[in-house]
Amino acid sequence: MTSLPILAAGAGGDTIAHVVLALAVILAAAKLGGDIAVRLKQPAVLGELVAGVVLANLDLVGVTWFRALTGDATIGILAQLGVLILLFQVGLESTVRDMLKVGVAATVVAVLGVVTPFALGWGVGALLLPGHSAYAHAFLGATLTATSVGITARVLKDLGKAQQAEGRVILGAAVIDDVLGLVILAVVAGVIAAAETGAALSAGQTGIVVAKAALFLFGALAIGVVASPRLFAVAARLRGRGVLLATALVACFVLAALASAIGLAAIVGAYAAGLILEDVHWREFTQRGEQRLEHLVEPIAEFLVPVFFVLMGMRVELRAFAHPEVLGLALLLTVAAIAGKQACALGALGRGLDGLSIGLGMIPRGEVGLIFASIGMTLTLHGERIVDAGIYSAVVIMVIVTTLVTPPALAWSLARGERRAAARGRGAGGPPAGGR
Amino acid sequence: MTSLPILAAGAGGDTIAHVVLALAVILAAAKLGGDIAVRLKQPAVLGELVAGVVLANLDLVGVTWFRALTGDATIGILAQLGVLILLFQVGLESTVRDMLKVGVAATVVAVLGVVTPFALGWGVGALLLPGHSAYAHAFLGATLTATSVGITARVLKDLGKAQQAEGRVILGAAVIDDVLGLVILAVVAGVIAAAETGAALSAGQTGIVVAKAALFLFGALAIGVVASPRLFAVAARLRGRGVLLATALVACFVLAALASAIGLAAIVGAYAAGLILEDVHWREFTQRGEQRLEHLVEPIAEFLVPVFFVLMGMRVELRAFAHPEVLGLALLLTVAAIAGKQACALGALGRGLDGLSIGLGMIPRGEVGLIFASIGMTLTLHGERIVDAGIYSAVVIMVIVTTLVTPPALAWSLARGERRAAARGRGAGGPPAGGR
Repeated sequence: MTSLPILAAGAGGDTIAHVVLALAVILAAAKLGGDIAVRLKQPAVLGELVAGVVLANLDLVGVTWFRALTGDATIGILAQLGVLILLFQVGLESTVRDMLKVGVAATVVAVLGVVTPFALGWGVGALLLPGHSAYAHAFLGATLTATSVGITARVLKDLGKAQQAEGRVILGAAVIDDVLGLVILAVVAGVIAAAETGAALSAGQTGIVVAKAALFLFGALAIGVVASPRLFAVAARLRGRGVLLATALVACFVLAALASAIGLAAIVGAYAAGLILEDVHWREFTQRGEQRLEHLVEPIAEFLVPVFFVLMGMRVELRAFAHPEVLGLALLLTVAAIAGKQACALGALGRGLDGLSIGLGMIPRGEVGLIFASIGMTLTLHGERIVDAGIYSAVVIMVIVTTLVTPPALAWSLARGERRAAARGRGAGGPPAGGR
Repeated sequence: MTSLPILAAGAGGDTIAHVVLALAVILAAAKLGGDIAVRLKQPAVLGELVAGVVLANLDLVGVTWFRALTGDATIGILAQLGVLILLFQVGLESTVRDMLKVGVAATVVAVLGVVTPFALGWGVGALLLPGHSAYAHAFLGATLTATSVGITARVLKDLGKAQQAEGRVILGAAVIDDVLGLVILAVVAGVIAAAETGAALSAGQTGIVVAKAALFLFGALAIGVVASPRLFAVAARLRGRGVLLATALVACFVLAALASAIGLAAIVGAYAAGLILEDVHWREFTQRGEQRLEHLVEPIAEFLVPVFFVLMGMRVELRAFAHPEVLGLALLLTVAAIAGKQACALGALGRGLDGLSIGLGMIPRGEVGLIFASIGMTLTLHGERIVDAGIYSAVVIMVIVTTLVTPPALAWSLARGERRAAARGRGAGGPPAGGR
């Protein structure tokens, strides 16, 4: 039973002792931060983010242990497992049929939410970075396109509104704009590479990216809807404990791995798995007295989801705010990021949806902007880096601000929509006409 | 939301896609293996182990993907989290008071179960390895000392007997023999180092190892019993969801990290945390309608525990059985390992305990023997490695056999004990007199 210190620093560099200590600190910080946020009538996730920001930025006063966690591979994977489980859980609350009902709205929202920030970001670049090439400006636009849906999903969940029409539109649109963002990045990076080498961009390559993504989304959903009842019927015949949860997790993980394999985010697959699985598929399990799947997934989420949000907070470097030359670009970029996604509200027009909440829910850029920016740092054109350290810092600040403003803004907007619906209900003497 | 393949192979080398695919395979294999085991009236854990053995040894026919998982750092950490959660869960089923009741029996069992295999292992070495030094023989004895309690804990849990007196004696003894094994290893390694350099072994160093371990065990239990109700009273005032589970996990993880920091196995700390926490501490949570802690921990265990057991099975290399010169040593070593722990049954004498089940429950050596053996491979005396490749293979085989024989043997023995108790009960016309 002994694990000796001599072997403790094993192959991976990470020891179990270090990992559990980090998890203990993260869970404690999450619950304390969440408590304060809830007392301030904010979603708990805001408290988790801020707890992470506070801990990691203790490096400004010389305490670097927490900052070091942001580079820890195992904690990073546990955080990603957490956001997978969160999206799976959110997906479980809706069905594929629910999603098809909001499909048109979600597509309109996604397209508007990609095109507008892309154009605005390009404009900000052209305005503030006249010395850089148009390619750099376009790249800046691309960093603003894809929504990081983890924050919004969590806020909707904290407020019990993930299964509302607005929630489904936002989540569906985020899946679609993930695909669109991928295409834009492929095109912009392709154009830059072509300009650098003098070769032409292959339209075929772009087409393949789009086709694979579309095939996955429609293929997984179509096959999944047919296969899922059969999978659970087979699983129900297995003896032993924990079969229902294990089967559901296997479905979630396989689709996540598939999504990742074709270049989409793993969480897109986890969300698709959640959409596909329906209560009726595991009726046999519940009929023999087992807990419902939602109840089984909940404790795993309670364990792992805060790891993701505290870690996201920890990735914030308050130091970045100290450079005045960066702040101007950061400010305009953030405005472009927020304003650009408000175009999404147009997608709600005439559908009885709360457009403001949809626009606000699409704001967070989370890790995606950072990933795009870090790809930009690896691209060069005639010896000039497409994204230099200053632009990268500005993107980091944009990510921080969009991440932190969304929880309170969305909570406020959803409450406002509810009050309006209630008022309309009282005024008309009947149920509200809108989708709320 | 995009994670691009270009960045997929991040800093840690492990991608989330690879990890979730591995988890999906492991969970599916665990449930299929468990199903077959349960149909054969064996504990599910045996099926999980065998599933791991089968998958990893597909490398004999050229399929190496599964074998590669045994070297995966993240899967390794998840497996260790799994066994932590298992021991925490098993600890939750007992209290410190329960443990004190079996404390004397557990101590006797532990001492007998360390001394006898140590002597037998030394004898086997002296008999079969006359060319090696007495130090190597002693080291071989040391590899047989510490019980790997994960297997036994899981079998007891599968059979619903973890809270029986025999179960508590085995688990308590395993904690104590972890400490004793640590001391023996420190002494043997110290003697070898002293013989190599000509310096004397410091009795003080040995004393410090023992003192730290004893201080942890008694200190953690004493402080924990006082602190735990207060911790949960504070936690009960926190707003937000998941506070009860998070608080319990923090306690588990902190004690695991502490145990590890002083050189004990992390699972000793997790088990201690489980013993300390009692239902009454979180009465406030259950009174306001939250789920019981045991129900919250169960799904996390269902997710992570099979990862540990399938991975343990995967670490088995059937190839090792192919070397006839190793097989003789392996055979005698295994006999010594199994027979040596049967001395533990003496600790049950006169206490109305099922001695055979205790002896069988102490058999598994799991990873501990491997850790000792791998330390032995790093030690040299006058240019000779204390543990060479042949000895290491023999230890591996001993670990495999002791791991695989325990589940069926213990299941059989516990059922036999139950039948006997029932027979006695019928014969005497009253409740059974024994501790069963």
